[in-house]
Amino acid sequence: MSFASHPAFRNFQPTPASIPPRNVVLRQVTPKDKPVYLHNLNPLAFLLRAAQIYPNKLAIAHPDTEHPVFYSFSVWCQRVQNLAYALIHVGIRPGDRVAVIAPNSPMIADAHFGFLAARCVFTPINIRLKPTEVEYIIEHSGSKLVLCDREYLHLLAGVRVPVIICDDTGKPDDPYEQFLAKGREFSAERSWQGLETEPDENAASTLCYTSGTTGRPKGVVSTLRGAYLAAIGNAFESQWVMSPTFVKLLRSSYFQDQSILPMFHAAGWTYPWATVFAFATQITLRTVDYSLIWKHFLHSGVTHYCGAPTVQIGIFNHPKAKRLERGITAIIAGSAPTAHLISELEKIGIKPCHVYGLTETYGPFTRCYEYPEWKTLSLEDRSKLMARQGQTFATAEVARVVYQPDPDLPLDKVVLVDVPKDGKTIGEIVTKGNIVMKEYLNDPEATKKAFRGGYFNTGDLAVMHPDGSIAIMDRSKDIIISGGENASSLAIEQELASHPHILEVSVVARSHPKWGERPMAFVILHPQHAEKWAGRHAEFERDLKEHAKKRLPGFACPEWVEVVPELPKTSTGKILKTELRKRVNNMKAKL
Amino acid sequence: MSFASHPAFRNFQPTPASIPPRNVVLRQVTPKDKPVYLHNLNPLAFLLRAAQIYPNKLAIAHPDTEHPVFYSFSVWCQRVQNLAYALIHVGIRPGDRVAVIAPNSPMIADAHFGFLAARCVFTPINIRLKPTEVEYIIEHSGSKLVLCDREYLHLLAGVRVPVIICDDTGKPDDPYEQFLAKGREFSAERSWQGLETEPDENAASTLCYTSGTTGRPKGVVSTLRGAYLAAIGNAFESQWVMSPTFVKLLRSSYFQDQSILPMFHAAGWTYPWATVFAFATQITLRTVDYSLIWKHFLHSGVTHYCGAPTVQIGIFNHPKAKRLERGITAIIAGSAPTAHLISELEKIGIKPCHVYGLTETYGPFTRCYEYPEWKTLSLEDRSKLMARQGQTFATAEVARVVYQPDPDLPLDKVVLVDVPKDGKTIGEIVTKGNIVMKEYLNDPEATKKAFRGGYFNTGDLAVMHPDGSIAIMDRSKDIIISGGENASSLAIEQELASHPHILEVSVVARSHPKWGERPMAFVILHPQHAEKWAGRHAEFERDLKEHAKKRLPGFACPEWVEVVPELPKTSTGKILKTELRKRVNNMKAKL
Repeated sequence: MSFASHPAFRNFQPTPASIPPRNVVLRQVTPKDKPVYLHNLNPLAFLLRAAQIYPNKLAIAHPDTEHPVFYSFSVWCQRVQNLAYALIHVGIRPGDRVAVIAPNSPMIADAHFGFLAARCVFTPINIRLKPTEVEYIIEHSGSKLVLCDREYLHLLAGVRVPVIICDDTGKPDDPYEQFLAKGREFSAERSWQGLETEPDENAASTLCYTSGTTGRPKGVVSTLRGAYLAAIGNAFESQWVMSPTFVKLLRSSYFQDQSILPMFHAAGWTYPWATVFAFATQITLRTVDYSLIWKHFLHSGVTHYCGAPTVQIGIFNHPKAKRLERGITAIIAGSAPTAHLISELEKIGIKPCHVYGLTETYGPFTRCYEYPEWKTLSLEDRSKLMARQGQTFATAEVARVVYQPDPDLPLDKVVLVDVPKDGKTIGEIVTKGNIVMKEYLNDPEATKKAFRGGYFNTGDLAVMHPDGSIAIMDRSKDIIISGGENASSLAIEQELASHPHILEVSVVARSHPKWGERPMAFVILHPQHAEKWAGRHAEFERDLKEHAKKRLPGFACPEWVEVVPELPKTSTGKILKTELRKRVNNMKAKL
Repeated sequence: MSFASHPAFRNFQPTPASIPPRNVVLRQVTPKDKPVYLHNLNPLAFLLRAAQIYPNKLAIAHPDTEHPVFYSFSVWCQRVQNLAYALIHVGIRPGDRVAVIAPNSPMIADAHFGFLAARCVFTPINIRLKPTEVEYIIEHSGSKLVLCDREYLHLLAGVRVPVIICDDTGKPDDPYEQFLAKGREFSAERSWQGLETEPDENAASTLCYTSGTTGRPKGVVSTLRGAYLAAIGNAFESQWVMSPTFVKLLRSSYFQDQSILPMFHAAGWTYPWATVFAFATQITLRTVDYSLIWKHFLHSGVTHYCGAPTVQIGIFNHPKAKRLERGITAIIAGSAPTAHLISELEKIGIKPCHVYGLTETYGPFTRCYEYPEWKTLSLEDRSKLMARQGQTFATAEVARVVYQPDPDLPLDKVVLVDVPKDGKTIGEIVTKGNIVMKEYLNDPEATKKAFRGGYFNTGDLAVMHPDGSIAIMDRSKDIIISGGENASSLAIEQELASHPHILEVSVVARSHPKWGERPMAFVILHPQHAEKWAGRHAEFERDLKEHAKKRLPGFACPEWVEVVPELPKTSTGKILKTELRKRVNNMKAKL
């Protein structure tokens, strides 16, 4: 049943402080010295505009908690204003960092806009981190205040900074709601006219910490201008239309999947802003629950959602999965979709849209553009093309694949040269322009290194195809040097995944006395086929190796295969190859 | 028959100079001192990107001339590069103005991008002007060079500036093509890498002269940043989607109607850039030919076109008009669509999208947003809502309706106060931000006056409805002061147009001994009903006055009605009320 026909929706009342006054002026006072022909790019404008044009449209639906809440753009905009005043009231000053620890929920959506209105820096923290890591981030960022969902309060054990707790109830006795009510009171109804706009569009909007599989996390500083342009790029590339049809039909146009697209991860790729730019409704879920996901797919009018391949697998393998009457677009990032994945999604009416990016690039900055002529290709051929990372976004500047002819030059003298567009020569993806972070906070050395040659160096290794599209081969540390040849663990995984009995696979380098390194594959069997191979894993290993031999050069064929019940993953659903490498290193010791 | 199946299309060959070299690098060298995280907003980027991602897609179709031409994005991009080098070769320097006189044709489309690549200012001149007016503009702008379509060469009689003539043939012996070939030669294949990018995003992109119904035309200076953001706004608000379906189906997605949306008029509202941002194909027609328009509607896969109400009337009244199988969106600007117009368009499957703007605002900056609940309204009620100018564009800052409480204050002390949101109180529409011109060229006084109170003052009188949407009542000079009441000539026209026998109507003030002023209506009868009233115009006048009395307050009812065979119009299809006022003044003399 759709949540819109549920009594919880029909009877929901926002807190008194959330109700905007009649005749609210949805406009800030802009700096006096600004020329008439310029205004600063700032995503906050999207919300003021949505509340102005579609005040009664559902902006946020948070339907699957004990106390479901539903906010229109008008009410949400008032709550955001209250949050800004509340922050100012407790002494937050422009440029201050304020941390947020929360799963997908209205509070973290509020923070995306309210912090910009208070001119402080939105600093989201991954809820899967350990208390010591959280402590490090709070300290490193110099956060003055933390907004924390009660479920994650234990993460703040070692933290001395003031905390506002959110019970995620939307009820007047919720400490977070009391904080907002204080803000409203402090505003004395000065409304948006009482909040100064940030005069510098290159001021920091967000500070996101990289999940950092190795070493300390780094603080990625984004700007207001970058966030504005990246969000517009995402809206356009996700093929959102601001039409009455859209507004009417799509009460729940955007699905925030907590596993792969939590709002704390790279500020949700700027999607929390992009959705508002497009007047779309966001349905927020606190946890990844495939049953709930299917409920919303089938009954809540969802049109788009985001997820890494691993989440997509969970979706199409769920017992509730069935062919959708109305198409849904899946924005896929994190790693490339395989042929199997694309075919399974298409079978149930989900259209894949493959994008690529990093925290340092505001989330996606390239998209695999499709071509009409692909329609006549076989699924396998088409999937190979769809697995490419493609070309740069509408509002991004440029993506190149380069190498450094002289790797010994000092950082400020580095010269980057394009690899040939041959689909073979491996180089590093670099980019620059508005969709690149400003810097790593308090880490000029790391910034300088990342910006060598006048570009942001992604660390992702790729080839450039003759048509100008980029295809990632590996993270630089994931490449396998087998008998002197560069074997891409990603390319091997793509080929192994075409084996019909495989659900998921990850390949890492394992040292080899003769070849230096050789690929080792960790495999999860598909539930439907696991029984067949029970007790016969050695036989499956031979079968898979045969499969590989037909598709891969000898140096790229896995030397070892291990069937496992699960793969270690990061909080954002990426496979932790560092963990697999540790296992492999222990194996080596045993050899 | 679609032009794509015509031999002219299949056999077309661009000039040798238009063919890009293999492995062209579609990237400029950016200034050294630019931070890695910033790149300048410049619409030129759209073309480099389209040529990179969809090189073989049809960008420009110019099918209805003696020598039809068809350019892919790849070829067009090379031609634009050639144009830039050709300009530099003849001594054009950054910031120089270069004029263009041409109907819609590939040359003026080239100029939109090539001039930005050469860093000179695109200065389009209206082909309907008189030679003395053209002379004035060339002199006032200080244009160093003119690109002129041969058909309009007579306009340059008094001009001493060098001229490049274009025969619009796309053949190697065309002087314009020879100019481009010289550019290619001069480039020595340095390609895009040899063209410096403009380092200031607030530098002038275009210089458009207002058509100026009274007084000397003023030169409106736009910026690169403004053009970039306005174009993206137009792409989004026109509901263009960059999807494979779009790319495949819409070989001819955009129709440049020479009458109302010539590319010389306000630089085509930034649509020549917006179409490229969305990878859309432009079909260019040299003249308004409703028969050709219908040919393309029916056979060329057109999805969007732009036109003032007067053009829309020509479209749905044409003998070829019939219900379209595939919907087309009409972007309507220039004046508000009437109920009659909306119903006639919808009958044949054309969906109206009403936008509003001026040359000073890069074309449209507001749109009449629609609401799902409108679907249940009567056509008449819905049309009244659709006739509103609505609310600001995605990338615009703000639109207000204001008055000056103290009109005697000096310009730099002016204070603007919002009118109440009552749908009644008339004020002036003002706006500011990125979608506002930089200045009037060499006219600081006019700029200062237009920018009084920190906003661009449009001169359009409007009301603000309680929902925040703007509805124009009149240009300030078109308001009729009848018995001390403000009567909106536009509102009167809207009501008179609902008379089923009226094709077009225009209302102006005529002085009246008792009431000061009273409305006078000039009416064109619908061809289907003209015969019925032949010789009985006095009777029709009574009939129309009866019709008016039921719908308008007494002071707004027309005191005089005159049936005319045609109405005087500007080159952009707007009714010339100044001409009607002259007639009325002569009548007064006769009274």
